[in-house]
Amino acid sequence: MTTEVLESWVAGRWQGGSGDGTVVRDAVTGDEVVRVTSDGLDLAEVARYAREVGGPALRALDFGQRAAVLKQVAAMLDERKEELYELSARAGSTRRDSAVDVDGGIGTTFVYSSLGRKGLPAGHVIVEGPPEPLGKNGTFAGQHVLTSPHGLALQINAFNFPVWGMLEKLAPALLAGVPTVVKPATPTAYVAARAVRILDEAGVLPEGALQLVCGSLGDFFDLLGGQDHVGFTGSAHTAALLRSHAAVTSRSARFNAEADSLNCSVLGPDATPGTPEFDLFVKELVREMTVKAGQKCTAIRRALVPAEQLTAVAEAASERLSKVVVGAPGAEGVTMGALVGLEQRDDVRAAAGVLASAGRLVHGDPHRVDVVGADAEAGAFLAPLLVEVTDADRPEPHEVEAFGPVSTLLPYRDTPQLLDLIARGEGSLVGSVVSHDAGFVRDVVLGAAPFHGRLLVLDRDDAGESTGHGIPMPQLMHGGPGRAGGGEEEGGLRAVHAHLQRTAVQAGPRQLAALFAAEDPQAEK
Amino acid sequence: MTTEVLESWVAGRWQGGSGDGTVVRDAVTGDEVVRVTSDGLDLAEVARYAREVGGPALRALDFGQRAAVLKQVAAMLDERKEELYELSARAGSTRRDSAVDVDGGIGTTFVYSSLGRKGLPAGHVIVEGPPEPLGKNGTFAGQHVLTSPHGLALQINAFNFPVWGMLEKLAPALLAGVPTVVKPATPTAYVAARAVRILDEAGVLPEGALQLVCGSLGDFFDLLGGQDHVGFTGSAHTAALLRSHAAVTSRSARFNAEADSLNCSVLGPDATPGTPEFDLFVKELVREMTVKAGQKCTAIRRALVPAEQLTAVAEAASERLSKVVVGAPGAEGVTMGALVGLEQRDDVRAAAGVLASAGRLVHGDPHRVDVVGADAEAGAFLAPLLVEVTDADRPEPHEVEAFGPVSTLLPYRDTPQLLDLIARGEGSLVGSVVSHDAGFVRDVVLGAAPFHGRLLVLDRDDAGESTGHGIPMPQLMHGGPGRAGGGEEEGGLRAVHAHLQRTAVQAGPRQLAALFAAEDPQAEK
Repeated sequence: MTTEVLESWVAGRWQGGSGDGTVVRDAVTGDEVVRVTSDGLDLAEVARYAREVGGPALRALDFGQRAAVLKQVAAMLDERKEELYELSARAGSTRRDSAVDVDGGIGTTFVYSSLGRKGLPAGHVIVEGPPEPLGKNGTFAGQHVLTSPHGLALQINAFNFPVWGMLEKLAPALLAGVPTVVKPATPTAYVAARAVRILDEAGVLPEGALQLVCGSLGDFFDLLGGQDHVGFTGSAHTAALLRSHAAVTSRSARFNAEADSLNCSVLGPDATPGTPEFDLFVKELVREMTVKAGQKCTAIRRALVPAEQLTAVAEAASERLSKVVVGAPGAEGVTMGALVGLEQRDDVRAAAGVLASAGRLVHGDPHRVDVVGADAEAGAFLAPLLVEVTDADRPEPHEVEAFGPVSTLLPYRDTPQLLDLIARGEGSLVGSVVSHDAGFVRDVVLGAAPFHGRLLVLDRDDAGESTGHGIPMPQLMHGGPGRAGGGEEEGGLRAVHAHLQRTAVQAGPRQLAALFAAEDPQAEK
Repeated sequence: MTTEVLESWVAGRWQGGSGDGTVVRDAVTGDEVVRVTSDGLDLAEVARYAREVGGPALRALDFGQRAAVLKQVAAMLDERKEELYELSARAGSTRRDSAVDVDGGIGTTFVYSSLGRKGLPAGHVIVEGPPEPLGKNGTFAGQHVLTSPHGLALQINAFNFPVWGMLEKLAPALLAGVPTVVKPATPTAYVAARAVRILDEAGVLPEGALQLVCGSLGDFFDLLGGQDHVGFTGSAHTAALLRSHAAVTSRSARFNAEADSLNCSVLGPDATPGTPEFDLFVKELVREMTVKAGQKCTAIRRALVPAEQLTAVAEAASERLSKVVVGAPGAEGVTMGALVGLEQRDDVRAAAGVLASAGRLVHGDPHRVDVVGADAEAGAFLAPLLVEVTDADRPEPHEVEAFGPVSTLLPYRDTPQLLDLIARGEGSLVGSVVSHDAGFVRDVVLGAAPFHGRLLVLDRDDAGESTGHGIPMPQLMHGGPGRAGGGEEEGGLRAVHAHLQRTAVQAGPRQLAALFAAEDPQAEK
């Protein structure tokens, strides 16, 4: 028996690629799920369809209409989200994991719909800032405006969030009037494809606004240029390869990357055992290690604690980790699912080995795991692994990202050394400071900000409403400098602006008024 | 006799490179001016000095103090600008040309000083936008802030504006608290070096805030990473090479490019001979062809006119061009100087030949020029050349940038075809629409905006105060999509923001207030 080929959605048709493709297996059982291949698909047609059908269709809608489309997108997916949960379980995700991906993606889309409705002007053009007078007599001024480019948005997603990753990129592109081509990661492409099929069947998207290419992109980059936008989430290695392409280096296609990240969480010196912050730190660390089995670009990889608390934290975290139940999503008592596949499990085991070589494992065995409701060897299971590295200057914890349920505990002496250690991550998506001492928090936040896209301050006062270390919020920037890719996503309307072309228009007041009055009735008020 | 080696300013010392270097010749006489080489300079020390001395020194100043430094920079250069004019004349520039470079650069610095004083908060951190509530009880919120990265700003400049190019990049970097390393273009490095020497002698810059490397950058990119910023102005070819380096692709150094640009100027159908706009169009075209001998990345390369006006424009432009007097800057009656060197003249001749092969020359001879006050063969002189290409679909006018006093006249039939022709430039720094018809202007501006960083609307009403097609203004974005490099410079404080790291900080209200109240007293009001 041969499994089916996962169909792509190109130029308004569902089409399967030819050839054998890559077999994708169930993360829990090892059974074949689908085969993924784009061989034989006409990718030039994908680009043409986006530019000639999708772009004009989206640009014909004003911002309000595009926001309304997004609302329908979110509502339609919400109606059929059980299908997405079921498929996600085959990729190893528990319901808690899927909430991050599925509900997170739907919620993000709702937020963007709302931002588009409330935060964008009528019409098709964003008039940015006040006019800049350029002459003493008031006959000449400059005005920055943002307009829709005539290209496409290619999104290349990671396997861990097939739904959220697609929607958090789709929403701002769609608001900006730019058609999207999705290239999902192969191991979870069948989840993304189901979401696209739901949207196709609901008929809520303008023709050509969204296409899906399952499998290799082939020479697609050869078709990209200065009007196009690439949103990439994945490894730094692949980001570097793609970013070296002439589409980016010569033709200046925009390239936004979210890549590797050795995110830190810092325990404050005030947060000794018995304080609420100590407990919050340990709880958040364990949560970040286990949600999505640690397969999150935002997960805590480096837990930095005062040297004198190293043992106490190791013990408290180990105790908490010992209650984690690994197994088949949905099986009785299971709190942590599987990694996405056996290959991923092997990679994580190897990386955890490198980390352990710099110190010692204080919890978990990379080669042994108790599994509920599944076969420990057939499925991609791994025990949560906590490594302790007492020599914080060792390079491994600051360079090796084990993309699974793995974190490293590191001691720090004082704030200056702490800031040095943080900076050795060479740029991260997110860091946490868990402390009730406003002075310490201030030193760490201001010292660590240049190296982070997001920083969470966690204490007894905000813990109740905190959205957590690992969760990007659509209102806030998601991205980070350096190793993290240097990109910026979300951040509310910032992501919409990032898809638009900024132009400074210089003219006299009569022409300026005529130019944008009709486009943007709000500007007349 | 051997000419002197131009000294670099590295780690607080003036140092000449070793070896023969590249001989730079006087653009007018062909005499040797200096030799340029960085051989033997310790470029790793340059990077260290920027990071360890310049960065901390600048970050210790608050925004107001940095703005005050810029004011002194501008004032000191203004005092000694005659020296810069004199040296610029050796590079072929008339006083009118130098006004764009020298006074333009000084004026830009004054504007940034003022923007820094009036537009930035007290303290060292920009609090961006209002807090984003993230919980219903008001115990958790997000706040975007912008902080100074701990890296350096490397600027790689083009030969045409050694002073303006340096200052328009230095000013926002300095306001952002980032130390600068300048790599001037070799042919006019001696002008940039004089400006740096004036600043050194004036002692107005914090130690390490500015360094200058004359000659090759060697392996300097190997030293760059995610905290660094590269501002490049030059050819698309070189931009692509540099942008392919692992510093950018792997380590996410920021890279801003201003590259090639086939800027257009459009004559409206209403602007028939006898209208003020017809005259404005012709005058601006000729001005753009002759200022800096057309060696401006913003110069008009494609003059798009209604087909029925092609002959009238050719005749009017030719008549005006026939009054241009080419010769030694400062010589009696000279209105256009030399190109920067013989190699540049040969390149422009070759490119003009390609353009002429697509149509015909309607003014000027690439191989013959009357020169006042200099030897036509020893100096890098070229007559202004106007090419007419009646088949506007020919590829050459939309692809070949002759970086000298060369423009191409192209006919258009109607607005849709006009917009297609404009888009064939594949992204430009600037375009002009010369028309008094607000409806036509609106169609062209909205249709062309996605392909431009700046658009000038020129008519009888704003011509008196218009700053012109070719002049970037510090208040307005300078850059363009696609072929133009995809960058953004200036744009007022946007360029300062572009040097800073954006971070979303999530915390409760008590911690948020403590974090930024001390930094930014304005936020308390």
